[in-house]
Amino acid sequence: MDDAASPRNVKLTIEYDGTRYHGWQRQANAPTIQQTLEEGIATVVGHPVTLYGSGRTDAGVHALGQVAHFLTGSRIAAERLPHAINARIPDDIAVLRAEDVPTYFHARYSAKRKTYRYSIVCRPVRPAVGAAFVHWCRRPLDVAAMGLAAERFLGEHDFAAFETHSVARRSAAENGLRVGDAAHVARRSAAEAEGTVRTVLRSDLVQCGERLDYFVAANGFLYNMVRAMVGTLLEIGSGKRPAEDVLRLLESRDRTLAGRTAPAKGLCLISVEYD
Amino acid sequence: MDDAASPRNVKLTIEYDGTRYHGWQRQANAPTIQQTLEEGIATVVGHPVTLYGSGRTDAGVHALGQVAHFLTGSRIAAERLPHAINARIPDDIAVLRAEDVPTYFHARYSAKRKTYRYSIVCRPVRPAVGAAFVHWCRRPLDVAAMGLAAERFLGEHDFAAFETHSVARRSAAENGLRVGDAAHVARRSAAEAEGTVRTVLRSDLVQCGERLDYFVAANGFLYNMVRAMVGTLLEIGSGKRPAEDVLRLLESRDRTLAGRTAPAKGLCLISVEYD
Repeated sequence: MDDAASPRNVKLTIEYDGTRYHGWQRQANAPTIQQTLEEGIATVVGHPVTLYGSGRTDAGVHALGQVAHFLTGSRIAAERLPHAINARIPDDIAVLRAEDVPTYFHARYSAKRKTYRYSIVCRPVRPAVGAAFVHWCRRPLDVAAMGLAAERFLGEHDFAAFETHSVARRSAAENGLRVGDAAHVARRSAAEAEGTVRTVLRSDLVQCGERLDYFVAANGFLYNMVRAMVGTLLEIGSGKRPAEDVLRLLESRDRTLAGRTAPAKGLCLISVEYD
Repeated sequence: MDDAASPRNVKLTIEYDGTRYHGWQRQANAPTIQQTLEEGIATVVGHPVTLYGSGRTDAGVHALGQVAHFLTGSRIAAERLPHAINARIPDDIAVLRAEDVPTYFHARYSAKRKTYRYSIVCRPVRPAVGAAFVHWCRRPLDVAAMGLAAERFLGEHDFAAFETHSVARRSAAENGLRVGDAAHVARRSAAEAEGTVRTVLRSDLVQCGERLDYFVAANGFLYNMVRAMVGTLLEIGSGKRPAEDVLRLLESRDRTLAGRTAPAKGLCLISVEYD
């Protein structure tokens, strides 16, 4: 059992169209990206594997550069793995690269920076081509106001107001707080704050014709954070909020005050960076 | 019957994802874009309609700006038609604009210029996101050689060598020639030439990372002409032919000498222009 005694750690960079999947994370009765990849990899390396992603993506969210790692006893050269795995998984998932990495590498815990893109098509008529990859906005948006607001996310902030409620409740429960006390949970104590502080390193909009792409990079993201940020930017772009609202929302730490969670299909994980 | 006595002519600009359809043209037992739109329009205007497109697109070919017209007795304002029709057709087809036009307007015969885009993704791994809209090229392409070759399509030429065989046979049959005489059909007489002369007004490549878009505009296109031109450019980019081959092929008027027909899914009808 020489192989088992010295397992390799393999890092994969993965692209997927999330439309047909119930998100990244393995589930009992629904197809997910993680499970589909684990099954494909297992047939290549000859043993079951657990694939650790840099983070979950929700149902309908896409990726051009998700990163994951798995341990294996297989001696197949890393450069041969993408082609071998891709031949065994559906066409809407592709392994772009495989690299041998030290055993201490962890796709989630070693990640230093992640970049997401949220794509919006703004026009009177719903998009027919590529509709699975964009959020359609029927009415014109004030892109200048959205740009100003986007800048205000830059830097280190407590993003509690941009973490979804259900998970806020769950993490409150994990912290021993009473679940069901919504006000208590939505507006958490300073002691809990550390867990919701993140540093945003990029936050800007790129407009090209009817298409508006929001790019955001951070040292980490809370659950549904990008979609809550985008929901808030969309409300600012629609004139429902002033651009100055962003700082007020960050200070409030109250999810009920921020914008609605934007639809999943506009979101794409662009890259995950490591040291 | 005042309405029937003075029918309106309505021009539609249409976007579609051709993946699920057997092309534009109505068929007996397969869903097509034309038929799907005709059914949707009929429920809006209250009578059956015939929709005349600027030209057919094949199964799997997409459009961002197909144009079609239909005659109707309905008095629904043109600006209300896109929303009304889009509510009655599947999500992968959308009417972008509707305009009243003179009765002499014909989507096909009045067209002065059409522009197509052919999208290629060139990288070792097959694309997973947006794969339905691009042709995947596994090996690197000599984009400079392709660009030189693309320029040689510019201007007025006889494109007989870039019209697909099956249709060349059919049109030969329509012209009273013997079908089945392949050499005769592939290399047609000068008298038939007029029907295969077209003027190419734009022919260039735009590269962005792994993606390569070929844009071609002409006063008209023969059946499968763009896909045959792209097939030839791909062979030039792969080093299988010299860039100079384009002029030789045009002069030959022989479809058997030009490149293979490139796959449908990379092709998109961008716009149709009228006076």
